[in-house]
Amino acid sequence: MTFRHRNLLGIEGLSASDITLILDTAERMREISERPLKKVPTLRGKLVINLFFESSTRTRSSFEIAEKRLSADTLNFSTSGSSLSKGETFLDTVLNLECMKPDCYVMRHGSPGAFSIMIPHTKAHLVNAGDGAHEHPTQALLDAMTIRRHKGAFKDLKVLIVGDISHSRVVRSNIHLLKTMGAHVTLCGPATMIPPHAASLGVDVTTDFEQALRGQDVVMMLRIQLERQTAGLLPSLLEYHKTYGLTMDRLALAADDAIVMHPGPMNRGVEIASDVADGPASVILEQVENGVSVRMAILYLLLSGGEHEATD
Amino acid sequence: MTFRHRNLLGIEGLSASDITLILDTAERMREISERPLKKVPTLRGKLVINLFFESSTRTRSSFEIAEKRLSADTLNFSTSGSSLSKGETFLDTVLNLECMKPDCYVMRHGSPGAFSIMIPHTKAHLVNAGDGAHEHPTQALLDAMTIRRHKGAFKDLKVLIVGDISHSRVVRSNIHLLKTMGAHVTLCGPATMIPPHAASLGVDVTTDFEQALRGQDVVMMLRIQLERQTAGLLPSLLEYHKTYGLTMDRLALAADDAIVMHPGPMNRGVEIASDVADGPASVILEQVENGVSVRMAILYLLLSGGEHEATD
Amino acid sequence: MTFRHRNLLGIEGLSASDITLILDTAERMREISERPLKKVPTLRGKLVINLFFESSTRTRSSFEIAEKRLSADTLNFSTSGSSLSKGETFLDTVLNLECMKPDCYVMRHGSPGAFSIMIPHTKAHLVNAGDGAHEHPTQALLDAMTIRRHKGAFKDLKVLIVGDISHSRVVRSNIHLLKTMGAHVTLCGPATMIPPHAASLGVDVTTDFEQALRGQDVVMMLRIQLERQTAGLLPSLLEYHKTYGLTMDRLALAADDAIVMHPGPMNRGVEIASDVADGPASVILEQVENGVSVRMAILYLLLSGGEHEATD
Repeated sequence: MTFRHRNLLGIEGLSASDITLILDTAERMREISERPLKKVPTLRGKLVINLFFESSTRTRSSFEIAEKRLSADTLNFSTSGSSLSKGETFLDTVLNLECMKPDCYVMRHGSPGAFSIMIPHTKAHLVNAGDGAHEHPTQALLDAMTIRRHKGAFKDLKVLIVGDISHSRVVRSNIHLLKTMGAHVTLCGPATMIPPHAASLGVDVTTDFEQALRGQDVVMMLRIQLERQTAGLLPSLLEYHKTYGLTMDRLALAADDAIVMHPGPMNRGVEIASDVADGPASVILEQVENGVSVRMAILYLLLSGGEHEATD
Repeated sequence: MTFRHRNLLGIEGLSASDITLILDTAERMREISERPLKKVPTLRGKLVINLFFESSTRTRSSFEIAEKRLSADTLNFSTSGSSLSKGETFLDTVLNLECMKPDCYVMRHGSPGAFSIMIPHTKAHLVNAGDGAHEHPTQALLDAMTIRRHKGAFKDLKVLIVGDISHSRVVRSNIHLLKTMGAHVTLCGPATMIPPHAASLGVDVTTDFEQALRGQDVVMMLRIQLERQTAGLLPSLLEYHKTYGLTMDRLALAADDAIVMHPGPMNRGVEIASDVADGPASVILEQVENGVSVRMAILYLLLSGGEHEATD
Repeated sequence: MTFRHRNLLGIEGLSASDITLILDTAERMREISERPLKKVPTLRGKLVINLFFESSTRTRSSFEIAEKRLSADTLNFSTSGSSLSKGETFLDTVLNLECMKPDCYVMRHGSPGAFSIMIPHTKAHLVNAGDGAHEHPTQALLDAMTIRRHKGAFKDLKVLIVGDISHSRVVRSNIHLLKTMGAHVTLCGPATMIPPHAASLGVDVTTDFEQALRGQDVVMMLRIQLERQTAGLLPSLLEYHKTYGLTMDRLALAADDAIVMHPGPMNRGVEIASDVADGPASVILEQVENGVSVRMAILYLLLSGGEHEATD
């Protein structure tokens, strides 16, 4: 079976079998990272440009390691010191990079429109590493890989996502994925952080955290952007923790074998208590580990195609 | 035939047959970038240090890709965070890097004197990636490769270079190259941007853009450094565009099959109109593409020498 | 014989035979850097993360080249733009990186406690690239390699270390190493720059530079941190040079075949006169060269272990 998409721009548009193929491939990639020699020659001679218009050490490092494990050549291109600061347009920057014949761009950009601009002008594959508040598909896929490893399947699984729903691309991608796979999703957060259209997404929405926790199989806590506080969306961090912080007491309301997730980086003592983050229900570090595997899988599926199946 | 130079510091000093050898080699390198696996082992085990004392994402990326396509090891060394900020002299920095046994430095530096300081102290090959207002030889070579691909030969070709002649290392390198290859060069720009000695370079000089355009085979537009305006050299960007911007109407004055070039990054609507930049006469993106090939050729000729001819 | 340590956190704790093994291995590594193809496949498929919480172009470049000569994959992770600036704790950053399955961290950190925090949480090998004022073991080892190449052995060798003793991790590592190997160490500097407990380290301590120089086999000058002057520890740089700068006249007081060392970057005209730095007794650049060999040796001993001895 082969992946029938040219790019990974979002989870929206992927079928359940697409997602299953990615997760199955990621499991195979995970084995490579367990070997003493963590490298395969699959993408030797391929060039991947990591094009980051917003800084992200964590995601960029995860992609860079994935690329190197597959033996791709990598070029890190970030805005600082780039031609963009000399007044060049985004499209001209892309057209220039395109002349260097990359096989793939991994891009993070503040605007979801950036990929639409690129697509008519590139022969390379595109991977979305976060586009504004729109999607962050590899995050949702690594979350899914982590959930599947613990829960086996998604059908009728109860997943609670808690925090700043309005500004989160992680939530959007996760809703698409979890709904496609048959899970039941509940969103929870302060009213100021839930978008008006949330209910139309086919999910449950509530501001009552403790009520929402009951019976959940997966509790996914979102990072509070500390700069939101100054914007007046949050009364105070302490207040937030009192109402929406995940503590051991609250976690006890969820299913007995509930797992706790967080996309990182965590604000300990704000959205999540330290003993929960480090406790037995936490799979937060597994998420990071699975991130490399999922990114290897995406790069493999997009770049090596069916034609390499036989030899690699 | 082998390249008889140890370094590429400028076009000045290269013979017509040197230049032809580089361009012929670049054509062979271009084929590598067209392959599915864009990598050859030619420079495996060679260390190239990209030593950038001025930021340049575009040129540095082009060199870095060229190095990786040839399987060299690369080290990016830029001034930010370096020992230079701790008061170390330029020469001490170089002497230290030299102890790490690089095979080649690709250097951009604000002063042309920097290479003179290095030469007595290094066993590595040197490639000039731009030294102040002096030379930018790989830019002239990629321009030449682009011209030759379209025009076949340089003899009696009419080339017009337009813009801030005084501050341009690109112009200096191009004049050397084009004159050596037998082309006829005309320089054009506002009087404040033409150096007094221009006429002594064996080129025509004029401030009348429309007159100058007539019959030109190649029209090379230079980037306007926007900061020049505040220095009083430019009345305004709009004014500049009115007088020296390349529009479709003006381009019609050149030869029917004239090509339009620009070293980038472009200021659309200033030195060049968008429809010209994106029009059928424009070879601007081919220049970028040829840049990788030319840089691979230079690294190959300097670093692999005749001894590798047989095996690579 | 194999290296019995999991990490290289400091010289303290290494035996004389450990040190000899590292230096002997470094001599073999040095040969690799002399080859036309300066690369061996020893660490292919191993991931080394260069984790720099303080900027250091010089040391980081030396490590990066060592890693590439051994064919390791490298990831450069620095604080700028990292999750740390988003409020993540040091340990959370490490736990995240750990999930990416590195084989080794090369870390520079402002605090010696950083390694203690990491050790319980990592399966990777750790190499200290400088931890506050505590240790800088690869610097001491490259110093030792340089000394041994010139003096043959350490037993009863007279070594003088001059400068800001209080704030120097280089001194601490060197004292441990030189004492372990049987050398005689004298520390010299202004009283404000010598820690009260210095005499208890089993070394001689003096403020009289000229007296101290007599008969020394090795004179190691430390870098003056120019920012110390504003802290009131130094009357003026000129004053410092007059009293503690190494000049040709002063060097004549040392043994006839004395060598002059400096960890770099040098302040010429402050702690060392230019003619001494560039003179026949100076081995300063050899130190830099040996730095790559020593770092290759450490990575080889920690990462390839005895199990690879037969095949590499």
